[in-house]
Amino acid sequence: SGNIVNNMAELKSAIDKAQAGDVIVMSNGIWKDAEIDFKANGIVDKPIVLKAETPGKVFIEGQSFLKIAGHYLEVHDLYFRNGYTPINSVIQFKSDEKNAAYDCKVVNCVIENFTQLDRRKKDHWVEFWGQRNELLYCYIAGKSNDGPTLRAELKGNQHANCHHIIANNYFGPRPRRGGPRGETMQLGDSYTSMVPAFIEVRDNFLDRCNGEVEVISSKTNYNKFINNVFYKCEGSLVLRHGNYATIDSNWFIGDDNSDNIGGVRVINTGHWITNNYFYNLKGNEFRSAIAVMNGIPKSPLNRYNQVTDVVIAHNSWIDCISPLQFSVGSNVNKSDVLPKSEIRSALPIRTSVANNLIYNSKTISEAIVKYYDTPGDIDFQSNYVSGVEGIENLNGFITAEMTVANSQSIVPLVTVVDRNAALFNGFNFSNIKNDIFSNGRSENQAGAICAVKNTKQNLLDVDKYGPVWFEKSKKNTNTKQLSVKSSEELYAAFEKINDGDTILIDADLLKLDKLIKVEESVVLASSNKDQKVRLQFTSTEQVPAFELGAGVNFHLNHLIVEGTKTLNCFEPNQADMSIATNVFVDECTLSGFHSIYKSKKGSFADTLKVVNSELKDLVNGFILDSETEAKGDYNAEFLILDNNKISTIENVLVNFYRGGYDESTIGGNFVFNNNTVEGAGKRGADEILLKTQGIVNVRILNNNFSSIESGFVARLWGEKNNVESGNTIYGKSKIVSDEFLTQKLLY
Amino acid sequence: SGNIVNNMAELKSAIDKAQAGDVIVMSNGIWKDAEIDFKANGIVDKPIVLKAETPGKVFIEGQSFLKIAGHYLEVHDLYFRNGYTPINSVIQFKSDEKNAAYDCKVVNCVIENFTQLDRRKKDHWVEFWGQRNELLYCYIAGKSNDGPTLRAELKGNQHANCHHIIANNYFGPRPRRGGPRGETMQLGDSYTSMVPAFIEVRDNFLDRCNGEVEVISSKTNYNKFINNVFYKCEGSLVLRHGNYATIDSNWFIGDDNSDNIGGVRVINTGHWITNNYFYNLKGNEFRSAIAVMNGIPKSPLNRYNQVTDVVIAHNSWIDCISPLQFSVGSNVNKSDVLPKSEIRSALPIRTSVANNLIYNSKTISEAIVKYYDTPGDIDFQSNYVSGVEGIENLNGFITAEMTVANSQSIVPLVTVVDRNAALFNGFNFSNIKNDIFSNGRSENQAGAICAVKNTKQNLLDVDKYGPVWFEKSKKNTNTKQLSVKSSEELYAAFEKINDGDTILIDADLLKLDKLIKVEESVVLASSNKDQKVRLQFTSTEQVPAFELGAGVNFHLNHLIVEGTKTLNCFEPNQADMSIATNVFVDECTLSGFHSIYKSKKGSFADTLKVVNSELKDLVNGFILDSETEAKGDYNAEFLILDNNKISTIENVLVNFYRGGYDESTIGGNFVFNNNTVEGAGKRGADEILLKTQGIVNVRILNNNFSSIESGFVARLWGEKNNVESGNTIYGKSKIVSDEFLTQKLLY
Ligand SMILES: [Ca+2]
Ligand SMILES: [Ca+2]
Repeated sequence: SGNIVNNMAELKSAIDKAQAGDVIVMSNGIWKDAEIDFKANGIVDKPIVLKAETPGKVFIEGQSFLKIAGHYLEVHDLYFRNGYTPINSVIQFKSDEKNAAYDCKVVNCVIENFTQLDRRKKDHWVEFWGQRNELLYCYIAGKSNDGPTLRAELKGNQHANCHHIIANNYFGPRPRRGGPRGETMQLGDSYTSMVPAFIEVRDNFLDRCNGEVEVISSKTNYNKFINNVFYKCEGSLVLRHGNYATIDSNWFIGDDNSDNIGGVRVINTGHWITNNYFYNLKGNEFRSAIAVMNGIPKSPLNRYNQVTDVVIAHNSWIDCISPLQFSVGSNVNKSDVLPKSEIRSALPIRTSVANNLIYNSKTISEAIVKYYDTPGDIDFQSNYVSGVEGIENLNGFITAEMTVANSQSIVPLVTVVDRNAALFNGFNFSNIKNDIFSNGRSENQAGAICAVKNTKQNLLDVDKYGPVWFEKSKKNTNTKQLSVKSSEELYAAFEKINDGDTILIDADLLKLDKLIKVEESVVLASSNKDQKVRLQFTSTEQVPAFELGAGVNFHLNHLIVEGTKTLNCFEPNQADMSIATNVFVDECTLSGFHSIYKSKKGSFADTLKVVNSELKDLVNGFILDSETEAKGDYNAEFLILDNNKISTIENVLVNFYRGGYDESTIGGNFVFNNNTVEGAGKRGADEILLKTQGIVNVRILNNNFSSIESGFVARLWGEKNNVESGNTIYGKSKIVSDEFLTQKLLY
Repeated sequence: SGNIVNNMAELKSAIDKAQAGDVIVMSNGIWKDAEIDFKANGIVDKPIVLKAETPGKVFIEGQSFLKIAGHYLEVHDLYFRNGYTPINSVIQFKSDEKNAAYDCKVVNCVIENFTQLDRRKKDHWVEFWGQRNELLYCYIAGKSNDGPTLRAELKGNQHANCHHIIANNYFGPRPRRGGPRGETMQLGDSYTSMVPAFIEVRDNFLDRCNGEVEVISSKTNYNKFINNVFYKCEGSLVLRHGNYATIDSNWFIGDDNSDNIGGVRVINTGHWITNNYFYNLKGNEFRSAIAVMNGIPKSPLNRYNQVTDVVIAHNSWIDCISPLQFSVGSNVNKSDVLPKSEIRSALPIRTSVANNLIYNSKTISEAIVKYYDTPGDIDFQSNYVSGVEGIENLNGFITAEMTVANSQSIVPLVTVVDRNAALFNGFNFSNIKNDIFSNGRSENQAGAICAVKNTKQNLLDVDKYGPVWFEKSKKNTNTKQLSVKSSEELYAAFEKINDGDTILIDADLLKLDKLIKVEESVVLASSNKDQKVRLQFTSTEQVPAFELGAGVNFHLNHLIVEGTKTLNCFEPNQADMSIATNVFVDECTLSGFHSIYKSKKGSFADTLKVVNSELKDLVNGFILDSETEAKGDYNAEFLILDNNKISTIENVLVNFYRGGYDESTIGGNFVFNNNTVEGAGKRGADEILLKTQGIVNVRILNNNFSSIESGFVARLWGEKNNVESGNTIYGKSKIVSDEFLTQKLLY
């Protein structure tokens, strides 16, 4: 039903003529470089609808966007892929400064990997303006460039009190960005932090949204976050600015192997955090299940207000370590090195923590409550605990027997056995009417679950989220192995491989006179791992041996790779650095390179990992120093060197740099364990072999250094997570730790 | 009806036993030192009522207070007078930290001159806590001590979202306080500036509430100010902190002779200022009819946020000068002398000024709009003007013919003649449904009045406000004249006078060996003004000649008053400095005093005025320097010396001091006009004859100085309102102007 339009001219004409109740149907196929300006006016029961002929068969590609402006408009079933927006946003709820959207909906749409080629170029994929707009049942994944995925703008009365709804969407993986501005949602900004927004974020699934430390950054007033699943997201729901948020009935699910997955971080006044279920969270400080921050007294608008009048009630922490952390961000010890207006010394006050449940399946001894400053004015009442030692003298915490219903969900559902255990009745607590399953609290219980009913609770049923027509997890299950015997065959193989393939080389030595472009994720290895093939790159120009395309995972196994000392072994391809590239080297020998890896401005590797290998005769080792603008960016999330034999490095072995610091990311990780290093480093008392300026997490353990020419093996950043131990250094070089680092603040 | 109680024990017992629906009646008479803790619980249609046996016949005196805590309580008809509170407040809507009031009312009560004996002691007369409490039909006047008259407290969820109502009250005169914290109402503070308050202040009459520059200081969100009359209040309704205030249908009435009477001062975001009527306002900057301030970029919590998203629509400015002033408080020129966090450089933005009416009965040429910085982003639309020259090129202002209905009100009611003059239709302007008289805007017009109906508009009918049983303006109309011939008779006369009496002296010379205590406002004069009586004070101790009681106006006419050089002529009485004292000297000779006037710590004179007199043979002249704590306090509002002959002053003629500066007061006024000064001042290049450190308004005009020993006659404060002209100085002494003064900031 409705007018079918087949091209942009027809679409434009249909929009221009649209009347309330009209349906405009975009014909199936690829719409390339579609700049859609859906500006029209429906009425309350007669919206104007723009939709796909067949859901999932209308592809918006190339340099495209959708603007929506007017009243009562709906957009259904469009699929954005293979491209990026030429403007600031992909879907934008306004046409221009004077025309925003009111009572409009975007439903069942997909934006997949529609990311800028240059990671540094900033955009938003969904930009809310106007009032009472909705994003429903959409799938959005794969943004790797600068800027929050979804952003609500509130500057101006016509955008305030907006009451937008973001519901039933699937926010698929967002890769680590390696710097700030990688939120999945940002609702307002500090300049509109006084604005009433009333944005409702409910029933969404957030799947590994790892962009930065804030999965959601709430910066306006009266926002509600209800019944969302945060599945293994490396970040938190952060109440960054604005007050009186409601965080109710959400699931925060962690991972045994990560301490980067967070829960809720609390700043400002009057939030109610109720009925939430936190499972398997292990993080500290910013990454803790509940991180209640210290504020700056009389804080500037864009910094940290004191926490006051917050209620944390009827939550459950299951298999979490130290889930309640207070005065996070306290830096009173830095009063001498930071200006007064930067000192977070204002303790949280008038805050209630009551009627919560803490359960650990294996008894632990870590404190439930952790303080980073003197305790503020926190009222703990009737919190029930099982599986934590040493709570006898902890006011407001009571040991209780608990029941675990494991079979009903991927998450164990825990309740207190004693149905008459006393509860605290705080001011307005009677407003907490239901539990996490929306069951009434007439027979009230501590924790998020009042009673486990017989219904199965399938939390992770991803089909409840996003468009029904869209398959959320696609994999190339059809991978193949190619075997090559010559240089020509090798170059040819790289032309025809698909994602996930393997190339095995059956030869002693291949001479390679030009670079290899790696455009798909691939494993390159010797066909017999006990007889390593030699790859000899002969160019004397400054080209790389391997040029890595966007998003590839490149594995190099059981190979000897040799250069001429002028070329670098691995380099990202400048032409498309939209998605992080990764390099995994195992049991190889790399020698004769100017650098093993050399970053470029704007490039980002999630993981660079070299293990069980020999690295020798190099000018440099790993150079990740291209982000020099002090904006908090850096060139790799993880650089891991484990169990390698390293020798004869003329200059620097690692230069991993981050300028500027805003606490918004994991912050760079360097792991250097179990290596032997001999004859390395530039000569000089001030020279450093392993340079990690500004990197937050550094681990240098159990290495053996000899004949190091540089004055320092490493200089660590004491106040951050920089540690060394078990290292042996023959000679005069040394590892030191500097407590504070002068960093440019980022705001 | 109800239980009559006769004393505190019976009252306490009645309160303890009170049930929903009970009425407790306090018997007529004086209740001294009554500490009433009205803690009980009524229900919605059955409140518990505490009331006077006969309205106006139950007097609460001495050290008394009333606390109210619980639900559905009402207090009626109590009269607080002749005393002060021993605690922090007179009427307090809480009993203690745990017990506040909800849905309680105070109706038809009076608090009159219930002021602390020590002006420096801080209290509040009505302190709001809890939620949904009301102050209705009360009369409150005469607070002269430290602290806002009415204060709403919002710290804690149990006090937030409070929805208090303050309606139909008469706020009688509040004298100038001579420093900050003299507001008539303060709603919240900067620490609760993010809290939603929803306080409604409507239908009140504010009569000469002159305490300080803020008559009302709104510091929380969503407060409403509707249909109030601000009658000759030396201050403004100030939106100091918090956002989204509604200021609708208020009357701001000025005075021909004052430029201290203000209108609305705007800071922060989202206020709607509509349908207000501004009459006869002449002030500038903080005192202008509409003062829109500059903000501090990323302001600290307690300073000045940028103005954004404000709507100023359908207001009328009648006989006002430059009613619209923008970027008030801009101090970008002080970037060198103040820290960056003090520079108000953020211009007002996204602000609409539309559909207003500007009328001047005599055509003036002063600009309607005044800027103290470059213009911000202000949208002027469809503002109609009559009686202002030079608006031809002013965007958004249109000359129009207007109709004046003078006979119907003390304020001329002005409308545009053309009933079809075009109006601007801004975002949400359709919410401005009525005009200032609550008539519909179906036939819409610019300005506050849509149509003048035939009904008489008696704005100043004070009987509409406060308790009907209370007479608002009481005067001693029964003043008398006493005639005295001897010292004994003079002392005796001062014992028996009443307020407003006159004492005439019929003698040549009276020798007075002790001080005269002036406890009532009185005129002291020679019976024949052409034959001045000599009053010779003979004490050689450091006592004053005249000791001034609290609140007196002391007039001295046609007298010669002589001292022994050890005593001061006038001094406030330390025992009670609760109310400002005033001294008026006309056609007298004052000689042989250590000082003419000497302040004391905590003393305050509203006006010290000496005219047409001779001052000679003094150690000092006027010493007003007792407030040394740099808290913005000072010892007199006005010191006026006009047309005097002054000679032989050993030390300093004037020392008028204010330490600290917060812009919250008129700021001290020194007028020194048409005097001749000969042989005065301490010798020394750095000495100053007229010291006015920190005084905001100084006017030194047309004086004649000779034989001045001090290096300076005066040093003026250039950036403030300090001016001199027409002065003649014989000799080397001089008047200089220093642009900036180093002042301690007060917050
Ligand atoms: Ca962020
Ligand atoms: Ca004030």
